Amino acid sequence: MENKGIFMSGTNNMVWKSLPMPKIQEDDVLVQIEAVGVCGSDLHYYQYGKIGEFVVDGDLILGHEAAGKVIEVGNNVKNLKVGDRVALEPGKTCGKCEYCKNGLYNLCPDVEFFATPPYHGVFTNYVAHPEDMCFKLPDNVSSVEGALVEPLSVGLHATGLGGVELGDTVVIFGTGCIGLSALLASKARGASTIIVVDMLENRLEKAKKLGATHIINAKEVKAVEEILSLTEQKGAHVVIETAGAIATVKQTVDVLKTAGTIVMVGMTPKDEIEFNFMKLMNKEGQIKTIFRYRNLYPVAINAISSGDINVRDIVSHEFDFENTKEAFDYIIENPDEVVKAIITMK
Amino acid sequence: MENKGIFMSGTNNMVWKSLPMPKIQEDDVLVQIEAVGVCGSDLHYYQYGKIGEFVVDGDLILGHEAAGKVIEVGNNVKNLKVGDRVALEPGKTCGKCEYCKNGLYNLCPDVEFFATPPYHGVFTNYVAHPEDMCFKLPDNVSSVEGALVEPLSVGLHATGLGGVELGDTVVIFGTGCIGLSALLASKARGASTIIVVDMLENRLEKAKKLGATHIINAKEVKAVEEILSLTEQKGAHVVIETAGAIATVKQTVDVLKTAGTIVMVGMTPKDEIEFNFMKLMNKEGQIKTIFRYRNLYPVAINAISSGDINVRDIVSHEFDFENTKEAFDYIIENPDEVVKAIITMK
Amino acid sequence: MENKGIFMSGTNNMVWKSLPMPKIQEDDVLVQIEAVGVCGSDLHYYQYGKIGEFVVDGDLILGHEAAGKVIEVGNNVKNLKVGDRVALEPGKTCGKCEYCKNGLYNLCPDVEFFATPPYHGVFTNYVAHPEDMCFKLPDNVSSVEGALVEPLSVGLHATGLGGVELGDTVVIFGTGCIGLSALLASKARGASTIIVVDMLENRLEKAKKLGATHIINAKEVKAVEEILSLTEQKGAHVVIETAGAIATVKQTVDVLKTAGTIVMVGMTPKDEIEFNFMKLMNKEGQIKTIFRYRNLYPVAINAISSGDINVRDIVSHEFDFENTKEAFDYIIENPDEVVKAIITMK
Amino acid sequence: MENKGIFMSGTNNMVWKSLPMPKIQEDDVLVQIEAVGVCGSDLHYYQYGKIGEFVVDGDLILGHEAAGKVIEVGNNVKNLKVGDRVALEPGKTCGKCEYCKNGLYNLCPDVEFFATPPYHGVFTNYVAHPEDMCFKLPDNVSSVEGALVEPLSVGLHATGLGGVELGDTVVIFGTGCIGLSALLASKARGASTIIVVDMLENRLEKAKKLGATHIINAKEVKAVEEILSLTEQKGAHVVIETAGAIATVKQTVDVLKTAGTIVMVGMTPKDEIEFNFMKLMNKEGQIKTIFRYRNLYPVAINAISSGDINVRDIVSHEFDFENTKEAFDYIIENPDEVVKAIITMK
Repeated sequence: MENKGIFMSGTNNMVWKSLPMPKIQEDDVLVQIEAVGVCGSDLHYYQYGKIGEFVVDGDLILGHEAAGKVIEVGNNVKNLKVGDRVALEPGKTCGKCEYCKNGLYNLCPDVEFFATPPYHGVFTNYVAHPEDMCFKLPDNVSSVEGALVEPLSVGLHATGLGGVELGDTVVIFGTGCIGLSALLASKARGASTIIVVDMLENRLEKAKKLGATHIINAKEVKAVEEILSLTEQKGAHVVIETAGAIATVKQTVDVLKTAGTIVMVGMTPKDEIEFNFMKLMNKEGQIKTIFRYRNLYPVAINAISSGDINVRDIVSHEFDFENTKEAFDYIIENPDEVVKAIITMK
Repeated sequence: MENKGIFMSGTNNMVWKSLPMPKIQEDDVLVQIEAVGVCGSDLHYYQYGKIGEFVVDGDLILGHEAAGKVIEVGNNVKNLKVGDRVALEPGKTCGKCEYCKNGLYNLCPDVEFFATPPYHGVFTNYVAHPEDMCFKLPDNVSSVEGALVEPLSVGLHATGLGGVELGDTVVIFGTGCIGLSALLASKARGASTIIVVDMLENRLEKAKKLGATHIINAKEVKAVEEILSLTEQKGAHVVIETAGAIATVKQTVDVLKTAGTIVMVGMTPKDEIEFNFMKLMNKEGQIKTIFRYRNLYPVAINAISSGDINVRDIVSHEFDFENTKEAFDYIIENPDEVVKAIITMK
Repeated sequence: MENKGIFMSGTNNMVWKSLPMPKIQEDDVLVQIEAVGVCGSDLHYYQYGKIGEFVVDGDLILGHEAAGKVIEVGNNVKNLKVGDRVALEPGKTCGKCEYCKNGLYNLCPDVEFFATPPYHGVFTNYVAHPEDMCFKLPDNVSSVEGALVEPLSVGLHATGLGGVELGDTVVIFGTGCIGLSALLASKARGASTIIVVDMLENRLEKAKKLGATHIINAKEVKAVEEILSLTEQKGAHVVIETAGAIATVKQTVDVLKTAGTIVMVGMTPKDEIEFNFMKLMNKEGQIKTIFRYRNLYPVAINAISSGDINVRDIVSHEFDFENTKEAFDYIIENPDEVVKAIITMK
Repeated sequence: MENKGIFMSGTNNMVWKSLPMPKIQEDDVLVQIEAVGVCGSDLHYYQYGKIGEFVVDGDLILGHEAAGKVIEVGNNVKNLKVGDRVALEPGKTCGKCEYCKNGLYNLCPDVEFFATPPYHGVFTNYVAHPEDMCFKLPDNVSSVEGALVEPLSVGLHATGLGGVELGDTVVIFGTGCIGLSALLASKARGASTIIVVDMLENRLEKAKKLGATHIINAKEVKAVEEILSLTEQKGAHVVIETAGAIATVKQTVDVLKTAGTIVMVGMTPKDEIEFNFMKLMNKEGQIKTIFRYRNLYPVAINAISSGDINVRDIVSHEFDFENTKEAFDYIIENPDEVVKAIITMK
């Protein structure tokens, strides 16, 4: 068993390194990584060397969407055994602050999150990880699907906090991986009408295949008018913004139903955005935001296993581990073509 | 246009009567009834002449699960027009009490409910009903499905108050129309594991077809042990009791997961039941009860129209309006065979 | 019994008119008005002739915060009798739309609200009003307090939707009548720390008397820094914006605790405001807005009667009905001095 | 510094033992205990040697309601320092199970709770305890009040899960320490009407002093009739059962308002109780149960410090640590007289 990892080393550069086999603590399992998703944040670190206040200093292993096989277990491990396949939840939290104790562990100020400097990610062969953050995959859930549990959890959290209910009308701005996850999650929660807005036709076609009842190409029609027309001028119960464009953030309130909920998910190019709060007040609307996710890995795995969520179909491209750098470069050069890429280890 | 209705006239007897065409008020629509479901309460009145404190005094038209076509509209009617097909919500409420104002109109003390003495039901050709209680059916929802919105709403309310969520495990006791509605509603809300318990094999097979992931015949195996075995000894997030048997009411707490919710729906043969509250406390469990439903007709219709809920498949028998009495007698004689009967008007 | 009313007649002008005694419908009571609060919206109509899309066309009676004595009851009236004193909830709603049925009647699109054109208000001697919108005042609640139930309900709604809980820290921007109502409501709901921000020293002193644990004069210190200092750099669970200033709207997110809730209440001078949603997302914060209130008159009256809320102390000035115009002019000339004015009828 | 503890040693017997000074781990603080409340569970172990499945095997230190002074801190301790006074939350949980992660740590199956066999309690001079379970007391909260945070948290949890809101009517059965805590918590959450039922006049007088608006001696009047009479035959929004008597458990549903909530808190002499679920269903009522409490120490301390909850007045008797056994014997002999006893260390 040899362990190696691929490190970003300066922007737009990666190097392979040999790594010692990780040593597990008594609560850990050792996981042989089998699949890792490439996230927009990985690409952003790779290209720019930082995200907001998080700056890559020295070489860093990227990747935080992972699944693999347990090959060793610590002395205290009770619920996993060698041979189990698992999805890895990436953020280790303190377990002691008020947020952890209240079940809001995603807000723990001391979280150590894969591929967020200074913590390394999972583009490597072997990772030691606490048992309680490794979730067993049933036989009918593949490791690629296991890696997709991470982005799916974002969609589940957005729709959960947003209160998407059976019979609802949902509008989703953006058809990136998170937008499509929100779409799958909305459908699984029973939304009857799901309107997806973007400007890329191939992405919109993908959304249609994944369950959107209506797709709108904002290049071709006026999205707000079209949504109002589709909803008898009432708007949507829940509006989920994943595009991160200033224009779409502003449109959320225009397509919101009275008493509805906007969920802000996408990172915008500037921090401050002119927003029409008067319109929001006249509808007694509310705005929720999400920060990652919490307590959703079991839900996601159950929903994939039961067939309620076909997360596998989000993936448009697969690459071998050996071609990780090539994969990053390809995605960056073909942003419209690549909906979601997965790296797999043999 | 001639109007007639069939009245129960003493127990186990029905008579046909000619009726004047109903006169609509300015907020009403006149509906030509096309389908009416036969509910257990209809059968109970027919056989025993009363349910609890509600006693049939004189001849009474039964039936409260109805859909039909609008043939006339009052002066104030805005959202419906002649030709629309609609499902009729059966309970007129005061709109002014604290329950109505708080959105809990199902608890209005002054409700006038179809086929609950002294108010007549809908086994008749024409009914005048307020516009706001007539919900338009899309083209892809039949009038038979429209009639089934009523019992489906009970299942939706049970699962809604019970908090059935995506990924949950649900246990349902009983496979009558309400048990099956709760099953369909649980599935539509995203439950991953749905365990249905009954003692009638044909009903359990029906449950399996409608989406139960596991069925348990309590005649053949010990239900509690079997459920615990299926759930790794943890029990279910939500346990829905629709059987109305003393034994099943008592079992609810045994198959409940820690922090879970029991929903009591079935009417029991006696009012007081010995219940193990100590077990419930050790799990910090809760018991919810439901009384009819509220604000769920639009949800039900959306879910049927979108394909999330295939309510049509609950129906096992259809009868012509002319044979309403024969239908009642047949159902009473073949309780195990008839899952749900619908009366249709030509 | 003679009935007269005072009408705004063009901006900054009022005229007295004789009025016929109102005729009650069978569900109405006739109320002899005893106290009416002067609201900022009354002043705005008086000065500018409109608020947003609502334009005063012709003469209009202002006033929507009223209490008085029942002097006649309609045939259907059950719960009120002649001699009862009542607070009048000002918005008649349809009772039939989806918002009314869901208990969100404040969002009814067909509401008829006192003193909102074209509906007259209550600066008059006698008003006919539906029984279910007249809430009986106990002996220990005065009619002046009854009139104050209206603005108090806004504070109760803001703190209710905002989720103010026992032990919470709350920041309130603005010390107008609504800011003070939010303060009283926060205190009654058990908030332990209530920080009030304004720039008027006399208002802040009033806030201190009404229960603020800390007051901040934003003219003298930097409010954000001061609030963070008072909260160990954590911010507040709930931030209630009633000042309606662009600066304070923007500051809400700076003083918000992680996972906290902002409630937007104040009307801002322009519709669009630059808001830092990135900060909100990093805290997984949420923004709620409120539109008037719902189902809170009984709560308010109970809380006043039990002594939990001393709403009377909000009032800084009282005027006789005869001097209504003089009252308006005085308030407009002395905006800082007048916290809340009440008009009383002899 | 010498450490000693008092151990129950067989039923109705206690022995003093010298103890080594506890050694703190890096996340722990060493606390010099200053006050310990005597709980009904302590008395039960002392008299009977067991509670349910928890059997005292060998000598055991009782006591789980404690406060004291920090005299040493571990290397990782950040938020506490020597000299701080703290209240000790008694249950150490795993931090890793689904309940801990969801914020329901009180339901952690691996909890180690003070004075629950095999874990020792706090009738001792020095205790090492994790920093995150030691909550700093402000200067204006005494150590006796700090010890009372534990039982108060039970009342806060009962009223929190029960949904006691501003303006509500609450009925509380039982005036033991938990009943009185529920009373204080209901008042602090803004309940307007609080009706307390018991059969001991001195306890009822205490309840009156602590804020009950009505007290009912069930020996003298029929409690159900009296409560209905006080509530215009409507019953209470929330009914909290702390008496643990079969009769009072059964009465809860009789005094429940439509759509109301029953909270079961008291341990009953037998596990199964005949309960009228039909009555509950007709009201669409719900039953909640509570198991200890969670995340409420900060809330309790804030509410005591702000003056919202005067928990100190629950205490009827104080004893010196040296007289712990005498205290237990006295309480057992005078159950009606002793409302709540506190042991204090010099």
